[in-house]
Amino acid sequence: MTTDDRWLRSHLREMSREECLERLNAEVLGRVGFNDDLGPVVLPVNYRIRGGSVIIATGLSTTLARFGVGKVVALEVEDVDPLTESGWSVLVRGRAEMVPHDGMPESEARPRPWAEGPRPLLIRIVPETVTGRWLVEA
Amino acid sequence: MTTDDRWLRSHLREMSREECLERLNAEVLGRVGFNDDLGPVVLPVNYRIRGGSVIIATGLSTTLARFGVGKVVALEVEDVDPLTESGWSVLVRGRAEMVPHDGMPESEARPRPWAEGPRPLLIRIVPETVTGRWLVEA
Repeated sequence: MTTDDRWLRSHLREMSREECLERLNAEVLGRVGFNDDLGPVVLPVNYRIRGGSVIIATGLSTTLARFGVGKVVALEVEDVDPLTESGWSVLVRGRAEMVPHDGMPESEARPRPWAEGPRPLLIRIVPETVTGRWLVEA
Repeated sequence: MTTDDRWLRSHLREMSREECLERLNAEVLGRVGFNDDLGPVVLPVNYRIRGGSVIIATGLSTTLARFGVGKVVALEVEDVDPLTESGWSVLVRGRAEMVPHDGMPESEARPRPWAEGPRPLLIRIVPETVTGRWLVEA
């Protein structure tokens, strides 16, 4: 502590890959990060983990479908409590590809979007890196 | 409703710029989106709005400092309730630049990082676009 520290700040701890995957499997809402013509876009998205990949349902003409497929994209998932200033975040990065018709998971295994609108396309993110951090209360 | 709709899904409504700015001003935790060598990165970050720009404090050798500055980056802020499947999200996009020493805001106006570690650099995102959506319970 120096006199500049007016608060006790939370500690950062790397999560193991196991811990990351456990958290990813337990959640259904994240944020997908990809690039359009201007640069990075970050949008909330419902997802499911299936066969070790992230599955996202999207519409035929969404920005994600137009700009994300075939590129490396990111999924961020977190749970941070503003009262204790603690929690965790996980980041999955990998190439996004269309799930072919014959690779479609049965409907219970698909993501269930909270928002209205048709989302017939399934996009799969095959993880290249999975990292995460605990934010531990001081 | 078709027989495929097993749930009532929430409605999406565009937020006005005013509504976006009001939400941005009220929160202190978002996610910054930028690109490193592999592609998009999305990480939780504490921010402050000052003079219409997003201010983020970071360390000298963070990925954000190395890859974000001078580029278009994104800040996403949201509050979504998983029980009602409703809430909102806002996305700010613009070029990230270092705040020069003589442009440093007084310390009460700086972001207060929840996580430990020195963050002497202040980065400013000057908004080019500010967009947001309400997710309204069905």
